[in-house]
Amino acid sequence: MHHHQSGRHFLQIPGPTNVPDRILRAIERPTIDHRGPEFKGLGFEVLEGIKEVFQTKQPVIIYPASGTGAWEAALVNTLSPGDKVLMYDTGHFASTWHKLAEKLGLDAQLLPGSWREGAKPEVIEQVLVDDKNQTIKAVCVVHNDTATGITSDIPAIRKAIDSAVHPALFLVDTISSLASIDYRHDEWGVDVTVGGSQKGLMLPPGLSFNAISEKALSAFEKAKLPRSYWEWQDMLEANKQGVFPFTPATNLLYGLRESIRMLLEEGLDQVFSRHRRLAEAARAAVQAWDLELNALIPSEYSNSLTAVVMPEGHDADAFRKGVLECFNVSLGNGLGRLNGKVFRIGHLGDFNEPMLLGTLGAIEMGLDLAKVPHRPEGVRAAMSNLVENNR
Amino acid sequence: MHHHQSGRHFLQIPGPTNVPDRILRAIERPTIDHRGPEFKGLGFEVLEGIKEVFQTKQPVIIYPASGTGAWEAALVNTLSPGDKVLMYDTGHFASTWHKLAEKLGLDAQLLPGSWREGAKPEVIEQVLVDDKNQTIKAVCVVHNDTATGITSDIPAIRKAIDSAVHPALFLVDTISSLASIDYRHDEWGVDVTVGGSQKGLMLPPGLSFNAISEKALSAFEKAKLPRSYWEWQDMLEANKQGVFPFTPATNLLYGLRESIRMLLEEGLDQVFSRHRRLAEAARAAVQAWDLELNALIPSEYSNSLTAVVMPEGHDADAFRKGVLECFNVSLGNGLGRLNGKVFRIGHLGDFNEPMLLGTLGAIEMGLDLAKVPHRPEGVRAAMSNLVENNR
Repeated sequence: MHHHQSGRHFLQIPGPTNVPDRILRAIERPTIDHRGPEFKGLGFEVLEGIKEVFQTKQPVIIYPASGTGAWEAALVNTLSPGDKVLMYDTGHFASTWHKLAEKLGLDAQLLPGSWREGAKPEVIEQVLVDDKNQTIKAVCVVHNDTATGITSDIPAIRKAIDSAVHPALFLVDTISSLASIDYRHDEWGVDVTVGGSQKGLMLPPGLSFNAISEKALSAFEKAKLPRSYWEWQDMLEANKQGVFPFTPATNLLYGLRESIRMLLEEGLDQVFSRHRRLAEAARAAVQAWDLELNALIPSEYSNSLTAVVMPEGHDADAFRKGVLECFNVSLGNGLGRLNGKVFRIGHLGDFNEPMLLGTLGAIEMGLDLAKVPHRPEGVRAAMSNLVENNR
Repeated sequence: MHHHQSGRHFLQIPGPTNVPDRILRAIERPTIDHRGPEFKGLGFEVLEGIKEVFQTKQPVIIYPASGTGAWEAALVNTLSPGDKVLMYDTGHFASTWHKLAEKLGLDAQLLPGSWREGAKPEVIEQVLVDDKNQTIKAVCVVHNDTATGITSDIPAIRKAIDSAVHPALFLVDTISSLASIDYRHDEWGVDVTVGGSQKGLMLPPGLSFNAISEKALSAFEKAKLPRSYWEWQDMLEANKQGVFPFTPATNLLYGLRESIRMLLEEGLDQVFSRHRRLAEAARAAVQAWDLELNALIPSEYSNSLTAVVMPEGHDADAFRKGVLECFNVSLGNGLGRLNGKVFRIGHLGDFNEPMLLGTLGAIEMGLDLAKVPHRPEGVRAAMSNLVENNR
């Protein structure tokens, strides 16, 4: 892997995503005084702008931390030791969030899942109806599981909680869907939305987010899990002045400002439809190759990544290694129980048609080199699909 | 403040410090796959290299978080709810660490201090001797308090703990001394050393560190404070492979690699003596101005920043505002009980003689414009001092 590789690297893991030059240039500006007068302009712009991305009028907390930290923040700010939380095993990241909750001393129940379908609203509703004493304090769902390429129906789960007439908080992870797949914090009645910088926001990793509701803020008043770094209160107070209670990741905030500007220039609706268009073309390629999608239900197909099942007897990681070494394209590996069995194509963030076709071409050639049975018609199918959708 | 300011900004707060172009260019490289083969080279290099900066052969944990997070990490990995910890109020940052410990559910005792002197080893020793049942689990000291410009004598405090024959852990914050003032994690017998990226390491904020001892690792086994993001175990396991258990702040790690290379090229001894030389010249200027240092004891003078007491009847913040608006130089404000009463000159990180003289010149002119009584001989005195030390 240490031979020279010409041309631009294709970072087609499902995040971190390719960081556009505009953002790279923004973050390389000299660091400024985070207590000085210039900073507030930056602070106010990102704190206001990020709300538009979450489609909320409520506060969004920005942490100098990666996404895992924002998971922890969502829990420690709203819950107390031993509290029951209901989670749904839609994939590796859902199960990792579950482990994190247990480590924090929560009584976290993980509803089983096949990792090939999204969270079932009716299952959640039944558990909540059966919880007569309403001891469950929060329902935690991953909107788009980065490991499986499956999106869960957040409005339907909101409806399920409401139908059960249950007061549990609703916590949603949008790390790999935010700014790629339509997501509405306010309209969908989510209490805490967890986000990260390195996916649809097109930034390097190192920033993460909690969008919060009034109900979450009330829960905060009573929540007893110990917290300090993640605490909302100090953040909200300082944010009113456009600043942060402890040192923020200034240069990544430069990048966030540029990211928000780019997203709003394109328009969120356009961002979502571009992701959908490119994702459909990627799936058309997989189908043409005669390979299997990990996702079983079309309405749950992820528009930010596609997980492809490797045919029996072929190692996904050996194939990925070949694609990287020969064609300078990084693909995502199978995580947890999917290890070696799937590869993942990230098609989110700063991404367009030729980038997708280059990626799919490298995969098609890689399948050939690795002698994986397939029809070499994926790229052709993707092109037809893109042309058709362009008419 | 929105009129045009020509030339390079002088970021002379005591951190974030001026980020050198080499590091800015390093962090603007495209983000790579943190699970791919190229990453490990970066991972191993920073994980090994950072040990040299802490002067340790033991593991150093790297967090995608700012320094406050590494404070929290040091506590949650070694202590249990209700544990007694002994802290020393050397300044604003010591008292902030104390508040954080209380928020986490620790029984944190803060020994009073004047904010004009460092931690007294004999006071700590007496408290430990009086703690017959040895209920104090940790002694926490800030090596260099960024708010006061005072350095505490860490080897002497180690000796005090040993003289008291007390088993408490020794936790030290080096956020504003690491890579600026000589600090030896192993030789000085510290159990957890807390560091941050945005000071002597010359990086933007967003990375922080825990250097740990064998004894700290044993304490970790029994420590019961809830933790997940900060947990050492998963980090140490993953770090063996040059990777991280959750998404690292890749672009800041590019910067860290460059920072470590720069520090080792210069040589740590040279780095420390450069900071000492420039700090002495800054203090010579303060003395020549006939202004008062906040630090009272010469052996405790900080070599990374100088806090200057404003003469009675003059507002330090109004003066700072003038220096920024007229001369494009940011100075540090007085924090906590020193608010409005001191200004702070940061002279750490990527810093040299002409940068210091430019800074001191702006201050001298600013004192004149703000009609603060002083002798206009500070720059001259600094130059004489520098020339003398250069002979």
